[in-house]
Amino acid sequence: MDVWGEPRVTAEAELIAALFQALDRLGVPHPDVRVRVSSRALLEDTLRAGVLRERPEAFPALCVAIDKLDKIGRDAVIELLTDASGLVRLPRADAASVVDWLALRDLEEATRQAPAGSRGGEELRELFELLACYGVADRVVFDASVVRGLAYYTGIVFEAFDTAGELRAICGGGRYDHLLETLGGSPLPAVGFGFGDAVILELLAARQLLPELRREIDAFVFCFGDAERAAAVALAAQLRAEGQSVELALGGMRLKRALAEADRSGARCAYLVGPDEVARGVAVVRDLVSGEQRERRLSAAKGDATGGERT
Amino acid sequence: MDVWGEPRVTAEAELIAALFQALDRLGVPHPDVRVRVSSRALLEDTLRAGVLRERPEAFPALCVAIDKLDKIGRDAVIELLTDASGLVRLPRADAASVVDWLALRDLEEATRQAPAGSRGGEELRELFELLACYGVADRVVFDASVVRGLAYYTGIVFEAFDTAGELRAICGGGRYDHLLETLGGSPLPAVGFGFGDAVILELLAARQLLPELRREIDAFVFCFGDAERAAAVALAAQLRAEGQSVELALGGMRLKRALAEADRSGARCAYLVGPDEVARGVAVVRDLVSGEQRERRLSAAKGDATGGERT
Repeated sequence: MDVWGEPRVTAEAELIAALFQALDRLGVPHPDVRVRVSSRALLEDTLRAGVLRERPEAFPALCVAIDKLDKIGRDAVIELLTDASGLVRLPRADAASVVDWLALRDLEEATRQAPAGSRGGEELRELFELLACYGVADRVVFDASVVRGLAYYTGIVFEAFDTAGELRAICGGGRYDHLLETLGGSPLPAVGFGFGDAVILELLAARQLLPELRREIDAFVFCFGDAERAAAVALAAQLRAEGQSVELALGGMRLKRALAEADRSGARCAYLVGPDEVARGVAVVRDLVSGEQRERRLSAAKGDATGGERT
Repeated sequence: MDVWGEPRVTAEAELIAALFQALDRLGVPHPDVRVRVSSRALLEDTLRAGVLRERPEAFPALCVAIDKLDKIGRDAVIELLTDASGLVRLPRADAASVVDWLALRDLEEATRQAPAGSRGGEELRELFELLACYGVADRVVFDASVVRGLAYYTGIVFEAFDTAGELRAICGGGRYDHLLETLGGSPLPAVGFGFGDAVILELLAARQLLPELRREIDAFVFCFGDAERAAAVALAAQLRAEGQSVELALGGMRLKRALAEADRSGARCAYLVGPDEVARGVAVVRDLVSGEQRERRLSAAKGDATGGERT
């Protein structure tokens, strides 16, 4: 889900509100999901005025490293940031201060540490004001450790997570104002996020909230063998032409298996085309709910689509 | 669309019938589409008993070459088949006989040229009988030149094409009984085809049959500027909570542009939240069909979801 052409955080707010509305509609319980937000701009401004003052070009590689914090932990991230053969190569004390910064959960403190004129903190404040108008501010927290791995983000970044902390991110995204240009298009500001559909499925399954989507069709048509196949195919084609949804058994099968398959198919009625039936020019129609049986006349010849039913 | 687990041509017939039903439902006119069928087995049996008697391993490379017949023409295919540095390396007379075989449109003649015991011709005859039961046999033709480029096909192959001959294949597929096994799965017979969605769009567009899918939403909400943004966001959130589909203008805009955007959005009503309206605690609601205006009271405070409307 994305918004193209809007440079202001009104777009981020609209998307985060839509994210919650989508999860609400899917039946994810309110307390189970929160959104963490941070800002690439706030992070970049702070680092460029601080530990990256001499080496601003190391910023993308630093983002890739610190995005692993959740997975590999503080010490391993410091190893990556100080690795003499790596791309970032910070002194150990600087690397530790970066990881300390990521532990911030107080937006005012993070803003205070940013250089004067950084737009990151102001944008986040504006975002929270807008989220309050949407009525979702209490479901969103500032979390400096949200970086998102991809290099193209330029502003606010966010991810939805399960409050139990058991799953990967439920949704993730942010602002990428230069992406279209980078790919050869016109400059166009943009924000977007992706749904983690597999994670949402896991979450709903764990809460036993997955809807049971029972397959429902009108008819299951089958014949015993090849002698009756032409009649069964013609009957299925005719039922479909009448607008019914029909599963046609493609192999021959006996009554017992056919009824099991018909049940599995979710059909309302099973149409049996056996040798006796074909000899009498009918199909037996069994209502799979009531168990009642009736007969339907098979079309006498091709082109005769005026079948009728008798109880 | 595919059928797994059915080794017999009942599966091919069902899929080709479904292909026609899908195109019919999409509104493609009957005379505009035909299906060509052939059989990889018929081709392979014929060649292995003939020009490839000494070099059966050249069959896949030969298929790739002759699949280009439509695009590059007879002479270029013969060049590929006789190329001394290629994979097939047929004598010129043999290559010409292969291309002659591809020109066959008579199933009986093609079957007569196949070695005794080849299942290909028999399967195609059975397919046509079944297609007659589905009522679509007159929309399907035998065409020996249908090969399909992919190496995994093992039996019947087919493609839907526009009778005007202007477009690429509309659908294409066939039987691939060994594919799952090749990929490390259990042996399981299979038939399937892919829809050329872009080609179908072209066909419908050329016939001016593309449905006009007008966007329809309930409301377009906008404010002039930031002073009224909080009220506009809260109103949009409230309308959405009431179940309405709402587009919220993410930038500020004046009345004229807003009404144009509202029209483009397909909204039934435009909600104007200007400075005068906010001062009076209302939004102006304009019905974009009738042009009538009424007012809707803005919620006095957060949590107050009991807005009302006055005409």
